[in-house]
Amino acid sequence: MSILLSGRWPEAERDQWLALLSAALPEERFVLAPEPEVEIAVVANPAPGALQGLPRLGFIQSLWAGVEKLLADETLPPGIPLARMVDPAMNEAMPQTALWAVLGLHRGFFQVQAQQRRREWRQPAQPRAAEWRVLVLGLGELGGRVAQALAAQGYAVSGYSRSPAALAGVRCLHGGLEVLDAALAEADTVINLLPLTAATRGLFDAARLARFKPGAGLVNLARGAHVQEADLLDALARGRPGHAVLDVFQQEPLPAEHAFWGHEQITVLPHTAAQTDARSAAALVAANVRAWRAGSPLAHGVSRERAY
Amino acid sequence: MSILLSGRWPEAERDQWLALLSAALPEERFVLAPEPEVEIAVVANPAPGALQGLPRLGFIQSLWAGVEKLLADETLPPGIPLARMVDPAMNEAMPQTALWAVLGLHRGFFQVQAQQRRREWRQPAQPRAAEWRVLVLGLGELGGRVAQALAAQGYAVSGYSRSPAALAGVRCLHGGLEVLDAALAEADTVINLLPLTAATRGLFDAARLARFKPGAGLVNLARGAHVQEADLLDALARGRPGHAVLDVFQQEPLPAEHAFWGHEQITVLPHTAAQTDARSAAALVAANVRAWRAGSPLAHGVSRERAY
Repeated sequence: MSILLSGRWPEAERDQWLALLSAALPEERFVLAPEPEVEIAVVANPAPGALQGLPRLGFIQSLWAGVEKLLADETLPPGIPLARMVDPAMNEAMPQTALWAVLGLHRGFFQVQAQQRRREWRQPAQPRAAEWRVLVLGLGELGGRVAQALAAQGYAVSGYSRSPAALAGVRCLHGGLEVLDAALAEADTVINLLPLTAATRGLFDAARLARFKPGAGLVNLARGAHVQEADLLDALARGRPGHAVLDVFQQEPLPAEHAFWGHEQITVLPHTAAQTDARSAAALVAANVRAWRAGSPLAHGVSRERAY
Repeated sequence: MSILLSGRWPEAERDQWLALLSAALPEERFVLAPEPEVEIAVVANPAPGALQGLPRLGFIQSLWAGVEKLLADETLPPGIPLARMVDPAMNEAMPQTALWAVLGLHRGFFQVQAQQRRREWRQPAQPRAAEWRVLVLGLGELGGRVAQALAAQGYAVSGYSRSPAALAGVRCLHGGLEVLDAALAEADTVINLLPLTAATRGLFDAARLARFKPGAGLVNLARGAHVQEADLLDALARGRPGHAVLDVFQQEPLPAEHAFWGHEQITVLPHTAAQTDARSAAALVAANVRAWRAGSPLAHGVSRERAY
C-alpha cells in the first residue's frame, strides 16, 4: 500500500509537497516512482501515461483545481474516482484578484497608471458601484465566491453558468451560449471563470468580443485557451473591449516577444490570480485520502463527463 | 435673504452646482457675489477674504470634506456654525480606493505591473489576508469606513486616532504620536486618512518613514502636506517604505517635472481617491440649509478647535 506523488514540477516544490503530505498523513507511505502497491495517486500536471500500469490504483487526487489536462490523457485509467483541489487559500485569493481587477476598471486606475507614464494629471469618472454591471462567467466554487464578493461591494452582478445556480445578490442566468451572449452586451466588466471544455475552448473569438460594450473590460482568470489571442488584439484596437486583464495565456510563461507585454490596454498577470497554498492544500489531501480509505464520500470529486 | 455660492472652480463646475442646488432648494435665492442679504454661504475652496463683510451671515456649508484651508483664512467670521461635506459617494469611493491599493500591495500587483514593462514573468508571494497588517491612520467618517471595509476582506487591521474609537474587527489605538510610531513598525500597509492640522503637517518625515517595515507600503489619501516629499524619495531608495500610493501632493496638479511621475516605487493618483458627487452632495446641502433655518442640529458640523 502506497501513495504515488507524480507531477511535472521543480524538485524543490516536489520536496515541499512530499514533506507536507508526509506530515499530514504519517500513516501512509509516499513514493515518487510507480510500483504495484500504489493505491492512490496524488498528482500535479503529471506526464501523460504516468498513471498507467498501477493495478491497485483506486483514487486520484489532483493538487490543481483545473483537471482538463489530466482528463485529456487517454491513458488515464477509466472508472477511478478523481478529486480536484479546492484550496481555501485559492478560494480567498481568486476573489481578491477579481476585486482588484474590477476596482481598477471601474475606477479608471488602469488608465490612471498609463497616464502616470505620460505625466498626465486627469481624473477619471467615478460611477457608483451599483451603476457598474459585472458579469461573472462560471458559477462553480471560485466563480460563485467571486460573484458574491463583488455583490458585497455593491456592484451590480450577473452570473452565467450552464446549469441553474442561485446566489444571494447575484442575477443568475443559465443556458447555452446565446444566454451568455445576451448578457455580454450589458456588462461593464466580464470575468471569465468557466471550466475549459470542448464547448468553451476559444470562447472569446472575434464574433463574441464584438458583442462587448465599447470600453468594457475582460478579465480572464480561467484558462488561456478560452481566448483567441489574435482576435483579442484586433478587438482591443476597436475598443471592444477597452481593456483586458489576463492571468492565463495560450503559452506560459508568456513569451518575451509576445504582443501582450507592451500593450497599454492589456494587464499581464503571471498566472498569479490564485495560487495553491501547499500548507492548506496538504490538509485537504489528507482528509480525502482518509475518506477514500474509510469508504466515505470524497470532497470535490470530478465528473469525467462534464470534465470539472 | 440669500445664499452665496463662493469657490475657486471652473465656471462649468460652478454652474453645475448652482443648477443642482437651485433644484434642491427651490425656496432659496442663490447669488454668486456678496450682498448684505446673504445669510448662508456654500463654499468650495473660496478665495481668502471671500466671506468678509456679510453682516447677516449665520451658517457656512463647505462642499469639500477637508476644511483646513477654509479655517486657515484669518478673515473667516468667528463663531459662525460651519459644516463640511460628507457625501455618500465619497464614503463609497474612499474604501474602494483603499481596498484597491491594499490589494495591489498585498498581492504584489504593483510589482507585477512594473515587471510587465520589463516583459518579466515572476509570481509574487501570496500571503493570506489575515497575515497582512494594515494600519489606518485617522478613524473619522472615511477612515472608519476604510478600516471596516478592509477588516471585512479578512485583513488584520489596526486603526489609530487621537481620541478613543471603537470599530468592530479593528484593533483601535489612540493617543499621541508615540502610539502611532509603535504601530507603524508592525504594519505591512499604512493608510493615511488623518485630518491636516498643525500636529499632523509634515507627519511623514525622514524619522517617521525610517520606522516603516522594510518593503511596507504607504497609501496617502489625505493631504499632500502630510508627506515630506523629499524625505519620501530618500526613504523609498532605502526600501522603507518599499512602495507609495499617493493621491495628494504638495502641489496639485503634480508638476510635469516632479520626480514622483517617473518613479517605479510610486503610484501617482490624480486626487481621485474619492470625488464628491454633486448629485448626492446637493441633497445634503439642502438638508443642512433647512436644518439651520429650522434651528435643528446640523449634520457634520466642524469644531474650529479640532479643525475637523
